[in-house]
Amino acid sequence: MAIKVITVKEDVFGANEEKAKQNQQRLDGSGVTAVNIMSSPGAGKTSLILGTIKGLQGRARISVVEGDVASSVDAEKVNQQGTPVVQINTDGGCHLDANMMASALDNLPLAETDLLFIENVGNLICPAEFALGEHKRVVIASLPEGDDKPYKYPLMFTEADVVLLNKADLLPYLDFNVEEFEKAVRGLNPGVSIMQVSCKTGEGMDAWLSWLLGQVKQK
Amino acid sequence: MAIKVITVKEDVFGANEEKAKQNQQRLDGSGVTAVNIMSSPGAGKTSLILGTIKGLQGRARISVVEGDVASSVDAEKVNQQGTPVVQINTDGGCHLDANMMASALDNLPLAETDLLFIENVGNLICPAEFALGEHKRVVIASLPEGDDKPYKYPLMFTEADVVLLNKADLLPYLDFNVEEFEKAVRGLNPGVSIMQVSCKTGEGMDAWLSWLLGQVKQK
Repeated sequence: MAIKVITVKEDVFGANEEKAKQNQQRLDGSGVTAVNIMSSPGAGKTSLILGTIKGLQGRARISVVEGDVASSVDAEKVNQQGTPVVQINTDGGCHLDANMMASALDNLPLAETDLLFIENVGNLICPAEFALGEHKRVVIASLPEGDDKPYKYPLMFTEADVVLLNKADLLPYLDFNVEEFEKAVRGLNPGVSIMQVSCKTGEGMDAWLSWLLGQVKQK
Repeated sequence: MAIKVITVKEDVFGANEEKAKQNQQRLDGSGVTAVNIMSSPGAGKTSLILGTIKGLQGRARISVVEGDVASSVDAEKVNQQGTPVVQINTDGGCHLDANMMASALDNLPLAETDLLFIENVGNLICPAEFALGEHKRVVIASLPEGDDKPYKYPLMFTEADVVLLNKADLLPYLDFNVEEFEKAVRGLNPGVSIMQVSCKTGEGMDAWLSWLLGQVKQK
């Protein structure tokens, strides 16, 4: 019985990986760079996407996939900016998967997109296990969450290309040790880029936008 | 095939519910009140438990179950206060379940415990689906997460007995609408108690401690 369960789990991950590869080939065929944005609930994924759309206006064409357990409040905010967006509701599910992503791609103008942001479900655990076909993984850690999160959610930080440390404007009011946090992240993932930002004040956003522009493909 | 998957899922939940009932009977037999504490990563579960142990010193005997994906940093903090504690590492799993809870109960001094705190894995989604045998469910929402969380993680807020709104000391620095938050929570769960606290400054802790003392059973 135990072996059977493991087999099922492997099949689920295997089938997801296969579908994710297909998604990535499709994105490559349209010259789209896809960025999977993951974090705890309320760390600032939507605020980051809204700030990035504004910051890259006229420099890159953006589309967005919004993943949520329920509601479409985030997609509505993105849509107000005139950006193409698809909302996926997982109906209780704790992460996006490659099949959901494939359905979203059917409904987005890929030929007119340079950067596709995927806002994953707010969860520091399960989304790290499911590839969607993205080219880059970004984890947002929020200063009020505390500096010990890399020790407690290691897979998420191990698999990130960029860690954004958001809500930097709150640093004076918190007991957060930036050096300890960076040490913990680099212990898991020596090559990762760590950038301190505040989506509220705009602090640090230039470095993030420059990194993103470096990921855009020639069409 | 689809029907088979649904059956497996129902079996998993059914078996968990059965085990949770057994855990609760065992707790009742020892006169222990168990409180399942759930939240996003970094909302303040461990700080709440540490502050509560201090606040109830000499008034109630406390034991703790610490649930984490990895590490034992939280259990070490609790242990330093001389409180009996068991750490459960889920090794990637996104929630505690009733079997893990049963193993923890085997290793705690139930006869000398009035209140058992269960610190669930930091996750606003999956822990709400798995009963552990607890008598009460407490959700900690943290002010920096924003006031829209009840819309996005409805099950967690629907099933809570108490919602603690933590990090109240940061209110002056945030765009957080307390009325909107309370309205959203009560829309899902009209009878819930909502208490504003700061584990850092101690603000609001008296109401929380009084509520807890009201849950202690006569032995």
